Amino acid sequence: MNPVYVDNNATTRVAPEVLEEMLPYFSELYGNPSSMHSFGGNVARKIKEARERVAEMIGATPGEILFTSCGTESDSTAIRAALISNPDKKHIITSRVEHPAIKNLFENLAKNGYRATFVPVDSKGVLDLDYLYRHLDDDTAVVSVMWANNESGVIFPVEEIAQAVNAKGIVFHTDAVQAVGKVPVNMKKVKADMLSLSGHKIHAPKGIGALYIRKGTKFSPFLIGGHQESGRRGGTENVASIIGLGKASEMALSHLTEMKTRIKKMRDKLETSLVKAVPNTMINGDKDHRLPNTSSIGFEFVEGEAILLMMDEFGICASSGSACTSGSLEPSHVLRAMGVPFTAAHGSIRFSLSTYNTEKEIDFIIEKVPPIIKRLRELSPFWKNTKCE
Amino acid sequence: MNPVYVDNNATTRVAPEVLEEMLPYFSELYGNPSSMHSFGGNVARKIKEARERVAEMIGATPGEILFTSCGTESDSTAIRAALISNPDKKHIITSRVEHPAIKNLFENLAKNGYRATFVPVDSKGVLDLDYLYRHLDDDTAVVSVMWANNESGVIFPVEEIAQAVNAKGIVFHTDAVQAVGKVPVNMKKVKADMLSLSGHKIHAPKGIGALYIRKGTKFSPFLIGGHQESGRRGGTENVASIIGLGKASEMALSHLTEMKTRIKKMRDKLETSLVKAVPNTMINGDKDHRLPNTSSIGFEFVEGEAILLMMDEFGICASSGSACTSGSLEPSHVLRAMGVPFTAAHGSIRFSLSTYNTEKEIDFIIEKVPPIIKRLRELSPFWKNTKCE
Repeated sequence: MNPVYVDNNATTRVAPEVLEEMLPYFSELYGNPSSMHSFGGNVARKIKEARERVAEMIGATPGEILFTSCGTESDSTAIRAALISNPDKKHIITSRVEHPAIKNLFENLAKNGYRATFVPVDSKGVLDLDYLYRHLDDDTAVVSVMWANNESGVIFPVEEIAQAVNAKGIVFHTDAVQAVGKVPVNMKKVKADMLSLSGHKIHAPKGIGALYIRKGTKFSPFLIGGHQESGRRGGTENVASIIGLGKASEMALSHLTEMKTRIKKMRDKLETSLVKAVPNTMINGDKDHRLPNTSSIGFEFVEGEAILLMMDEFGICASSGSACTSGSLEPSHVLRAMGVPFTAAHGSIRFSLSTYNTEKEIDFIIEKVPPIIKRLRELSPFWKNTKCE
Repeated sequence: MNPVYVDNNATTRVAPEVLEEMLPYFSELYGNPSSMHSFGGNVARKIKEARERVAEMIGATPGEILFTSCGTESDSTAIRAALISNPDKKHIITSRVEHPAIKNLFENLAKNGYRATFVPVDSKGVLDLDYLYRHLDDDTAVVSVMWANNESGVIFPVEEIAQAVNAKGIVFHTDAVQAVGKVPVNMKKVKADMLSLSGHKIHAPKGIGALYIRKGTKFSPFLIGGHQESGRRGGTENVASIIGLGKASEMALSHLTEMKTRIKKMRDKLETSLVKAVPNTMINGDKDHRLPNTSSIGFEFVEGEAILLMMDEFGICASSGSACTSGSLEPSHVLRAMGVPFTAAHGSIRFSLSTYNTEKEIDFIIEKVPPIIKRLRELSPFWKNTKCE
């Protein structure tokens, strides 16, 4: 059974075109790009092309692109570099709804001599900008705010935040792992100093990411070692995956129009139909400023995990909260920060689409999900109590 | 033209069997192993198998294997974890001939409040154990000594070192990136607390590594983020490459006998023939304690880079020093630490074989290299002066 895969914010299918470009670099053109021989040199040239393609996707120059092993490494690299560049500053700012790669890093730093401010969001997941700006001070080393939230899909006004943070001479980093490939990301417009992106969210393989470092930004390597990546990251280059990320970047750029038209239309249909068919259902997050592919729906009085298991029987792959925090029985920190009622937070399901999804798949989900919720509610004591009131 | 590839300490060909196991995990079975749905769960099971295979290769248990993005990340993870576990200790010990992943990290730490001891080697590249043991003190947080040297191939007595360092209650880490797959590596015998290995040195792809962490060793994550790798490394798993490393580990274990027989025989033939055919030539490193696949040969009075370029015209791919330090005009720090004469260090070439090399290729190199050295020496003023003496 082919899956009906609507969990693309967790990870994506490697595009066949991407895999095709990668393939020769495993068993045929396997040279080390740092080697003196032409067998290695040819690989170095292909990496150069990939760097240009990634840069092109986000309006950067190739020299501003550093390849990493994942979004998490990009985030750690950015934050550590900002702290090393500002050794006397001990205040760090982020939001309450960041991915664990930033959230857990900031919590760790807070235990190790840093003062961390976590900016709240409102019930729609919208960031409290006044709160953020009020907390910028002379001791602030870095502000890191995600471009778009992985669970709710809510987009933050990073262009405005970058400007305000820059005006104070403070380093601004944005985790754009979920934004890249779904909405336009242009570093000529958004003056962030650093930006994280990840390959496996845009149909490149898992295990490859990139960090944009604006020209002139002070930088220190996180992975200290060989001279690779112009001395900015030790470790032999992940050649095939870098080439894959290059091709995926080219494709992501060309799919942006489809994202805001066909994909958004399918997402809206899915969302509207489910809300209409299932009572006591709510959309999590600001509908006006959201990624076009993401819908987080709270089905009250049911357990998200139970919904997922029953959808799984039909081959429907979705998520409750983020894959990176699953395994915990707590509702996600994102939904809690938004103040989503306990009854709905526990039964929240994230559907996230990609260019591979079809209208037929959306219809299939619309057909299968309402009876699942109905059946689960019939088993739920909470639901019965509600109906009796 | 198919290359005559004898640069396997720089990187290796991905074995077709390895690629075959990886392939389905790009565009077909692309689920996130952390996901709740069975599409992701099936991937998690395959990662479990890969972890078992890597553990089996080095006599470890699966829970002792942490997947990383490369040998450099494994090294950084190990050293940082040891330092965090011993916050009051400020002395660190390594050798003078480590890979840049350790050497540059230790030099960086030496600039940031740590006292670093670099243990010397003799002219054969043999480590001065007395020097090492004399420098162990109550302030020592970690000792890191490589299992085998990437340039000379010299093997260090890590079993003995581990015992001595352990006896003092000090953390011992070994960078075994070059040893794994070439000589037996058994963590039941060698009581190191942590060990680094890299996929692309054993016919898995670039961009995947592992860190062995002995059960009971205090550990702190280097990449802070999601709950992946039992909370020991954030970041979505590099699924296909992890699976590739699993298969490559199984193959490496089965090739160990071939390494010490067929490969060693070819290496010895290459070395003996070149030394015989070319005057003023020396072998770098202790011939009695060396990796079976590696030969570092110093051709006096010629430039290594020139030799590489001329070999390249025949499709022969080798290396001068390590790929990770190339780009520098200095002779490698390894050969300098061994006190290899300037005249020979500059003209040193490393030949490193793999199971893919054939007798025919070795004969080809033996045929082509001597005339290259002869021609280059005819152009060299140093050589002419020597001949006139």
